[in-house]
Amino acid sequence: MTYALLQGLRVVESSAFVAAPLAGLTLAQHGADLIRIDRIGGGIDYGRLPRMPDGRSLYWTGLNKAKRSIAIDLDRPEGRELVRSLVGAPDAAGARGGVLLTNIGTPWLAHELLRARRADVITCTIQGHGDGGTAVDYTVLCATGYPAVTGGATPARPVNQVLPAWDIACGYHAAFAVAAAVERRQRSGHGAELKLALSDLAYAMLSHLGVLAEAELLQQDRPSIGNHVYGAFGRDFATADGPRVMVVGISATQWRALVAACDVGAAVAALESRTGFDLSDEAQRFEARDAIAALLEPWFAARAHAEVARVLDEHRVCWGSYRTPREALREDPRLGLSNPIFERIATPGVGTHLAAGVALRLADEPRRPARPAPLLGTDTDEVLHDVLGLAAGEVGRLHDAGIVAGPERDPTVKPR
Amino acid sequence: MTYALLQGLRVVESSAFVAAPLAGLTLAQHGADLIRIDRIGGGIDYGRLPRMPDGRSLYWTGLNKAKRSIAIDLDRPEGRELVRSLVGAPDAAGARGGVLLTNIGTPWLAHELLRARRADVITCTIQGHGDGGTAVDYTVLCATGYPAVTGGATPARPVNQVLPAWDIACGYHAAFAVAAAVERRQRSGHGAELKLALSDLAYAMLSHLGVLAEAELLQQDRPSIGNHVYGAFGRDFATADGPRVMVVGISATQWRALVAACDVGAAVAALESRTGFDLSDEAQRFEARDAIAALLEPWFAARAHAEVARVLDEHRVCWGSYRTPREALREDPRLGLSNPIFERIATPGVGTHLAAGVALRLADEPRRPARPAPLLGTDTDEVLHDVLGLAAGEVGRLHDAGIVAGPERDPTVKPR
Repeated sequence: MTYALLQGLRVVESSAFVAAPLAGLTLAQHGADLIRIDRIGGGIDYGRLPRMPDGRSLYWTGLNKAKRSIAIDLDRPEGRELVRSLVGAPDAAGARGGVLLTNIGTPWLAHELLRARRADVITCTIQGHGDGGTAVDYTVLCATGYPAVTGGATPARPVNQVLPAWDIACGYHAAFAVAAAVERRQRSGHGAELKLALSDLAYAMLSHLGVLAEAELLQQDRPSIGNHVYGAFGRDFATADGPRVMVVGISATQWRALVAACDVGAAVAALESRTGFDLSDEAQRFEARDAIAALLEPWFAARAHAEVARVLDEHRVCWGSYRTPREALREDPRLGLSNPIFERIATPGVGTHLAAGVALRLADEPRRPARPAPLLGTDTDEVLHDVLGLAAGEVGRLHDAGIVAGPERDPTVKPR
Repeated sequence: MTYALLQGLRVVESSAFVAAPLAGLTLAQHGADLIRIDRIGGGIDYGRLPRMPDGRSLYWTGLNKAKRSIAIDLDRPEGRELVRSLVGAPDAAGARGGVLLTNIGTPWLAHELLRARRADVITCTIQGHGDGGTAVDYTVLCATGYPAVTGGATPARPVNQVLPAWDIACGYHAAFAVAAAVERRQRSGHGAELKLALSDLAYAMLSHLGVLAEAELLQQDRPSIGNHVYGAFGRDFATADGPRVMVVGISATQWRALVAACDVGAAVAALESRTGFDLSDEAQRFEARDAIAALLEPWFAARAHAEVARVLDEHRVCWGSYRTPREALREDPRLGLSNPIFERIATPGVGTHLAAGVALRLADEPRRPARPAPLLGTDTDEVLHDVLGLAAGEVGRLHDAGIVAGPERDPTVKPR
């Protein structure tokens, strides 16, 4: 499902990889008309794994749902001119344009060139480093210190996290920046040149989470604590027969629920009187984490997963099961059609599959169906007509000259 | 530094933990007047680790920079009424109010109660699960499959990531949702009831990244590949004397730069002819990742970190060094005052320290200084006066009755 929150906003996206496409997806699934500028034949990430047997990328089609695609030869001046025209096109009835989202800092698409066409243009460029250096999620992650404390790692044997967390944060942050700039333009008429660097975002987060002040003022780095939660109690436990479970007792309520569910009240009291810890204090629960885990382990180890689940839910413990995506699809009702954020869509070149619309829920507002990713150039003619007002003859000339292309030139479309 | 993008927007926040405070911080650092509703004495996360020796939390002060704090007794009807009045207060000159951000789904602060006061109210509630169940970052993470493939983990021995990535994504997504709803209200006059669940966001991301379609259509879960990057080439390497480095060759340009920097062109060609791989294709680089890593390892192992850095930079390789936060503070110029996103601020109860404003950069727009987190109730009188128009006598009565408090009641303030 998607919502029409940003209805009538037109955004041009020229992007690759995760952050910028995710920002565009977020805007698109919240109602913006998102026009992707695609290279004829596909850009740098069009074939990224995983792929269907016929070659279509499930990564690309996942991140580019709900967008329109115009395929353009970006190496030729006339193609580049088309892109600038699309960004600079004036507002029309019900269409507020003049927004570019990109992670490709190319001189022919510079902010000042676009501003010359449209004084209130908003451009949002996602960068690696703020000083112009190249970086991706992984090369930023290593500099944040997290791999040195993940999974019992040491600085000499770091463990990279697999989720592209900085890319994801950057994508949502960029979507926020665009929405905030559009809101200001609505009030003031001013455009904006926005830049957001992956490493700036990661380093800012170290400040926001207190990690930086801890390093500077307390002269300490976070400890490497395996699967424990930092600062309170939380850890994973094996059940007798099924998947492991993660349980947390961060708040006092969560902690009391966990103690009650596992029936360790007496043992916890004995631990407190033996050690002097006051386990109603979250910081002391963190200090005593290994002793607490030792008390809980037998309870989980003696019970089947189904019973563990039942008792934890009865006591309203905050917990979850470890699952692979295939297991989650089979076993977690929240990941399927009983959750309204999901529906089945038909993606060209992929087939029919479960897909998510927006995670956001708007009470009492109509949901609109999620739309799949296009083939490259699916919307070429339509975009040229309805944004630039080109007549059929001119559109035909651009095709004949190889400046634009339709979906038949998508390399994942098999010749009939 | 912060920017006045959302100047004049007034947001009331009642929150704890990471996601909702981060959303509020994002709005505040982009110019919104963010009023935190704090419990007298502090809420559930006010003492969260890490803490200064005197007890002030560096986590809390990191996430609550740039906000105003009003301390209220939320267990008493008159206190709750004050909160509803603050959210429902009408717009004034230069102040657009009527926005609540929270992760505390409490009946006395329900959307319909607020809408009765102000028809265009926007509320944004961050939840654990969309069905009302409790969840935190860690209990959502385990259900996404990532811990089963992190750091060479297996489903039976999962590895939790330490960065609260879902909280962070949720915080920025919520900030986006508020900005988008405010933009719509600006155009249409309509309010909105927004809900965003941590697990919905995580599961939607599995769809957006192609993981879900891979599980459903290809019947495969991601492999557990240690520190390798999925889908292309990227891994960490030990240098002769210093920190490990992460290098990637995701795009063709990055790959060519890496091969040239490490002078392995001939060895790569030999590997290609021996194995039949075409390593100009990123997916084949992924397949051949171990063989590629074996070619590169000796080059890194034979060189000091400083030389590795110099040569990689000369060739414009995409790379980074593994560092702890303390090492990054000492050695990475991007994490310090030479980066304009950072400045030194003085946080009450903490001292003077390096802190980040917004990661976003707006060209040609004035930066405003970053503001520290308040003590609980620092702004109680000011907020009662300028938002609710209460006279000094009425403010005094509320203090005397214990309904509100000033910063002297903050438990981290030492009696003089």
